[in-house]
Amino acid sequence: MAEQYILIAAQELRAYALRMIEGVGVTPPQAALLADSLLEANLRGVDSHGMQLLNFYIEHMQMKCMDLTATGSVVSESGGTMLYDGGNGIGQVVSDLCCDHVIRLAQANGMALVSVRNSNHFGAAAYWAQKIARAGLIGMAFCNASPLAPPWQGKEPRLGTNPICMAMPGAPETGWLLDMATTTVAMGKIFKAYFSGEPAIPTGWAFDADGVQTTDTAKAFKGMPMPLGGYKGYGLAMMVEILVSVLSGGAMSTEVGGVRIRTRPMAYGHAFIGIDVARFMPLDEFAQRMEHLVGMMKSSQPAPGFDEVLVAGEPEWRSKRKRLVDGIPLSKGVWAELEKTARLVNVTPPVVQEISL
Amino acid sequence: MAEQYILIAAQELRAYALRMIEGVGVTPPQAALLADSLLEANLRGVDSHGMQLLNFYIEHMQMKCMDLTATGSVVSESGGTMLYDGGNGIGQVVSDLCCDHVIRLAQANGMALVSVRNSNHFGAAAYWAQKIARAGLIGMAFCNASPLAPPWQGKEPRLGTNPICMAMPGAPETGWLLDMATTTVAMGKIFKAYFSGEPAIPTGWAFDADGVQTTDTAKAFKGMPMPLGGYKGYGLAMMVEILVSVLSGGAMSTEVGGVRIRTRPMAYGHAFIGIDVARFMPLDEFAQRMEHLVGMMKSSQPAPGFDEVLVAGEPEWRSKRKRLVDGIPLSKGVWAELEKTARLVNVTPPVVQEISL
Repeated sequence: MAEQYILIAAQELRAYALRMIEGVGVTPPQAALLADSLLEANLRGVDSHGMQLLNFYIEHMQMKCMDLTATGSVVSESGGTMLYDGGNGIGQVVSDLCCDHVIRLAQANGMALVSVRNSNHFGAAAYWAQKIARAGLIGMAFCNASPLAPPWQGKEPRLGTNPICMAMPGAPETGWLLDMATTTVAMGKIFKAYFSGEPAIPTGWAFDADGVQTTDTAKAFKGMPMPLGGYKGYGLAMMVEILVSVLSGGAMSTEVGGVRIRTRPMAYGHAFIGIDVARFMPLDEFAQRMEHLVGMMKSSQPAPGFDEVLVAGEPEWRSKRKRLVDGIPLSKGVWAELEKTARLVNVTPPVVQEISL
Repeated sequence: MAEQYILIAAQELRAYALRMIEGVGVTPPQAALLADSLLEANLRGVDSHGMQLLNFYIEHMQMKCMDLTATGSVVSESGGTMLYDGGNGIGQVVSDLCCDHVIRLAQANGMALVSVRNSNHFGAAAYWAQKIARAGLIGMAFCNASPLAPPWQGKEPRLGTNPICMAMPGAPETGWLLDMATTTVAMGKIFKAYFSGEPAIPTGWAFDADGVQTTDTAKAFKGMPMPLGGYKGYGLAMMVEILVSVLSGGAMSTEVGGVRIRTRPMAYGHAFIGIDVARFMPLDEFAQRMEHLVGMMKSSQPAPGFDEVLVAGEPEWRSKRKRLVDGIPLSKGVWAELEKTARLVNVTPPVVQEISL
């Protein structure tokens, strides 16, 4: 079944987003940061974290759930550690400042951790880990999110998709880059299967509403996403929750709001880690060793049904190269939502081409 | 089918292990460290990392694959970072020293990372994360291992079970404690299903020898363990490999030996992280917040078929409380192997009780 999309050039999509974000009252430099972080996700093919988030962000901004003027403040700084209060500012604005802090602290102390409370959705974690990596550090980024997944053996939602992300210096734009939710899949994939009329989803994706594992798409749609691989994904989600919320003094588990909850601040927590590889070996040598490791993975014969072995990040770089040239396809559903959002802020959408994919 | 076990008191098992370890030429304090780390795994019910490892360790020691006199050396120390060369010493001896370093460096710098090359098997990662946690820090421990799992879409083994481990200050002996391989299960579980005559294993555990997913126990036995949840577990295993081997300058992927490879040093890498929570908030407050988070998980109604919601570490503390009182059951197969090892070092095994479980 061919799905209907629109196709738009990256720069045109960025300009459209900028007009909307500035239209709701965000200053131009902060609007540019927000637009860039979402555009990068679309370019990388991670559309769940691309411009479709604007609909939620702008709603939060209009409902005054998010403080457009806040940039947060340092609560404490000590050695390689910092506690930061986001002051309910735009997630990307807070994260950009905190990544600058983690870079500075890691360069001064060898490694650093900034734990952040009272922030908002920061887009894709990769954008921030890459920012840290471009400074010559191993960059890591974590955040919590609306509670959707149950604890293992439980039937009530308690933990978000709580991603783990790591980017490498030397090749932050082309190299190994991990950015993964600690649920097997995001709830969006289950929604997509449901709306596409697929009767079954793979084992391990979801529970029904009673907390029983299911492959029935309709039951999963009303149910909950499963922690990655079962109880281990639950443990990883807790690891993230500890770094971003227990340590930050912020909202945790069911205290957290969400991008789809329009009545209160998201109160998300973040954590950023930087590791100065030059303290271990010259950066060039580290980059060569990374290349060697990646080469060892790719030297494996492909399994039946596959042409090649990939490493984390590779599908996204391929998408980016292609979409920079060919433009970005957005589903007509997402585009229609963006048009609604544009009307709210008196912005005229650009004329776009329709395509089938 | 009742399995046959022997039952032995913890202190008696420790004394037996000590005689064997000293019998192969390890000094008493180092032998005590080694025995304690393995005993703790047995007490916690993690028998795969308990005394059964002694058979492999002592073989490596007798084959001179491991240097019994080496304790390793600091290659470089800078801010909160350290590069350590294990000098092919006993993994537990090297790890104990490196945990002391990470504690010292984290207390001085807020957080610290020690990356270690040229070491040997360090037992269960939890033992080291707990040691760091007892100093009032969040403790993390990682290591690589013999390549068993293929990269995603590949059919040749390239990555070990590469565990991720995190322990909490305030309650390192009773609280939340994550210690998980980044494969769905350890190869030992597949072996156990095979030797118990179970025809099928769960989906997601294994590939056959061609790299095709299988639930056929016999095919899995000749095959490979699957990364946790598929490509995400592959990403997590790489994350660990980067921290322990790319950053340490040590052996990576297929360059690594293994406990079951008797002809060369294991060349394992480790990484230890300490985070000084007192830089973020008083330790008591942190411990209360952890308790609050754990309570939020346990407040969920149990899913059908379960009586309660557990958190990571809980099954192991229950095992420890029970085994400290009732004694430690070891399978007769493992006990027979230990008897063989004891003969090699002229130690007489203790008389033990046989039981069915």
